[in-house]
Amino acid sequence: MTKPTALDSLEQVAGNGLLHRRLFLQGGAAALAGATLLTARAAPPDVPASMKTPGAPMRGYGERSPHEAQVQRVVNTTPGTTGTGGSRTPLESLEGIITPSSLHFERHHSGVPDIDPAQHQVLIHGLVERPLIFSMDALARYPLVSRIHFLECSGNSAGNNNAEAPQQTAGGIHGLVSCSDWTGVPLSVLLDEAGVKPEGKWLLAEGGDAASMSRSVPMAKAMDDAILALYQNGEKLRPEQGYPVRLFLPGYEGNMNVKWLRRIKVTAEPTMTKDETSKYSDLQPNGRAKLFTFPMDVKSVITSPSGMQKMQGPGLYQISGIAWSGFGRIRRVEVSADGGKSFAEAALDGPVLPQALTRFRMPWRWDGSSSLLMSRAVDETGAVQPTRAALMAARGAAFRYHYNAIQSWNVGAAGEVSNVYV
Amino acid sequence: MTKPTALDSLEQVAGNGLLHRRLFLQGGAAALAGATLLTARAAPPDVPASMKTPGAPMRGYGERSPHEAQVQRVVNTTPGTTGTGGSRTPLESLEGIITPSSLHFERHHSGVPDIDPAQHQVLIHGLVERPLIFSMDALARYPLVSRIHFLECSGNSAGNNNAEAPQQTAGGIHGLVSCSDWTGVPLSVLLDEAGVKPEGKWLLAEGGDAASMSRSVPMAKAMDDAILALYQNGEKLRPEQGYPVRLFLPGYEGNMNVKWLRRIKVTAEPTMTKDETSKYSDLQPNGRAKLFTFPMDVKSVITSPSGMQKMQGPGLYQISGIAWSGFGRIRRVEVSADGGKSFAEAALDGPVLPQALTRFRMPWRWDGSSSLLMSRAVDETGAVQPTRAALMAARGAAFRYHYNAIQSWNVGAAGEVSNVYV
Repeated sequence: MTKPTALDSLEQVAGNGLLHRRLFLQGGAAALAGATLLTARAAPPDVPASMKTPGAPMRGYGERSPHEAQVQRVVNTTPGTTGTGGSRTPLESLEGIITPSSLHFERHHSGVPDIDPAQHQVLIHGLVERPLIFSMDALARYPLVSRIHFLECSGNSAGNNNAEAPQQTAGGIHGLVSCSDWTGVPLSVLLDEAGVKPEGKWLLAEGGDAASMSRSVPMAKAMDDAILALYQNGEKLRPEQGYPVRLFLPGYEGNMNVKWLRRIKVTAEPTMTKDETSKYSDLQPNGRAKLFTFPMDVKSVITSPSGMQKMQGPGLYQISGIAWSGFGRIRRVEVSADGGKSFAEAALDGPVLPQALTRFRMPWRWDGSSSLLMSRAVDETGAVQPTRAALMAARGAAFRYHYNAIQSWNVGAAGEVSNVYV
Repeated sequence: MTKPTALDSLEQVAGNGLLHRRLFLQGGAAALAGATLLTARAAPPDVPASMKTPGAPMRGYGERSPHEAQVQRVVNTTPGTTGTGGSRTPLESLEGIITPSSLHFERHHSGVPDIDPAQHQVLIHGLVERPLIFSMDALARYPLVSRIHFLECSGNSAGNNNAEAPQQTAGGIHGLVSCSDWTGVPLSVLLDEAGVKPEGKWLLAEGGDAASMSRSVPMAKAMDDAILALYQNGEKLRPEQGYPVRLFLPGYEGNMNVKWLRRIKVTAEPTMTKDETSKYSDLQPNGRAKLFTFPMDVKSVITSPSGMQKMQGPGLYQISGIAWSGFGRIRRVEVSADGGKSFAEAALDGPVLPQALTRFRMPWRWDGSSSLLMSRAVDETGAVQPTRAALMAARGAAFRYHYNAIQSWNVGAAGEVSNVYV
């Protein structure tokens, strides 16, 4: 018989060891007083070499530790090209809600152009009273607004509609989502200056890359919260995020947030570009394609523990992950450790902002048995993240975009974590 | 006579052209419909070279555009050393509230040690029931919390108590403040596990650098919101921010947030280390030094327009800046364009979080005359940022730390912006 510990006395809130979220909120840890949570040794450390010699000098622009060089985006290039494809954020290696700009996901249709901001211009024309061209210097004079928002490629997580569950990391499967502090000029200010004619109900946004990425955007979104983003996480946009200027449409599918923006044409109807007809449309079970699915649906994924990771033996763990919705704030995230038979509410940690990644956390006492972990997000409109079975039934097996089903991770008895369909 | 424009009809809220903050809030720009705000040309752009050739391939870890290489921290090294001194965040080049980790300020007392996380350990000992040593792997198993917080060196802005106002950029004067999304283990969880004895009222935190940076921290703060930070802006801490682990004390002066943390000793009294007696104490007008001024006071600075910048002629501008307080949230920021004769309330943009940078914005119609800009922050405790004259009178001319007076920028008739004392 093992002597009962403080851990055994903790309140279980759902099946298979889920503990109340208050455990890790301020003061909650007092319930653990005296419990040895994890392996901790007691031999005193030697004075390390780092205390015996002065360290490295300061730098004008810092870099990460060489010990972290293994944390990389997962690059997938379309065969026969150099810059077409995507690279995914290694979600399982990250924490909090801000994605470092160096690890923000990429999705390019013809590589990353090198644009000199001194030469770059943005044209606003079409159904406007006065066509305008803005240099980057002129744009920088305009009023700016800052917002923390996620960006997600509409093709994110599509591997999970394969017949076999892909065995990859959380980032490898779901890493076409990232979150930044974006700053830019409200598009409404520029459109007001140009003077949109009454018949101008849409706009065409065109990028300055070799794919001439082009999408149609409803005027209502342009006038609501669209910005021409100039800054990302404090500094100017990164080249792979559209330097020197991108369109940013909070909550809308990634490719509409046109990078390297060079032109906005006000139109009466959508332009039906190659990028919204030959792709980025949703094939329905009846064989017809649905156009213009703009906002990204409510979604979540557990990033720890997650695919390809290995548990370090039974005991107390913190389940952690991210949730987001293109329709607004996350209202709650529920976690299950018994394959969906029971769920309990996770703690939302840090600011809960509209159209932003929201970090959730849940204490879990793993008993070492095979366990099925799931997270289910609910947004402020009441939309609930669907099961995979429900999503596949509604959309059919051929759909490629806007996959937002619940991710199930199986924790095996040996501690290995794998992607499973249930 | 110039024909009146939409700009002339805008509501002025304080002297010398300050306009109501609603102008740039959602929908407010409609007031400008039809007004040409700024220089905008109408010649259509050529198809640029970037649209004629595929761009660069994707990368595992991205870098900024080479066109932005001039944005650098302002490095000041103590003569005769290589890694002792500080480097300042170029605040005037940044936007939003998140500081890119590569531009987070530095303050080192003996350079940046290179620490292998596989070898690093944190010891908790002293007045505890059971001394514990944590490897980095063990710490990573513990529950994490994420918080967006500023960090400010207590010596920030000290140049402004020189007899002559230093002519530098906003970052050069005030850039020992930055803001990140920090994630780490609540210190209370680890202290609870070690079991603090009743007489343990303080702790000593010691860094693993060659300066052995050491500070005393009250137990109440340690048990309240202190964390052992492992992540900064999503990824692991940067080397110059304490990789692989630093103490983080929200709102407290920077040097107490001990980097490269190797040891926490629970004590009955403060340890009176060299770093809290020979420095980081506040010399009073009576010649005595005051110990232990922990939280950073309420403060703000206009970053645009700011020192060493040049206006581009009369017209509409957005005054923008940052405000923060170690005592909680910013309640409001007031801006003056007439040297403090009249103030009006700025818009707070983006999330307003406790102990975090808060971005403020204010529309301003500059008429081309010499103008004195100021910002004055008020925090949720009601504390008001003092004038320089009031601060100097209260603290005396010799004080070096916790300078938080109102910054005044003079915009000259030729558009040059300079630092002035008023």
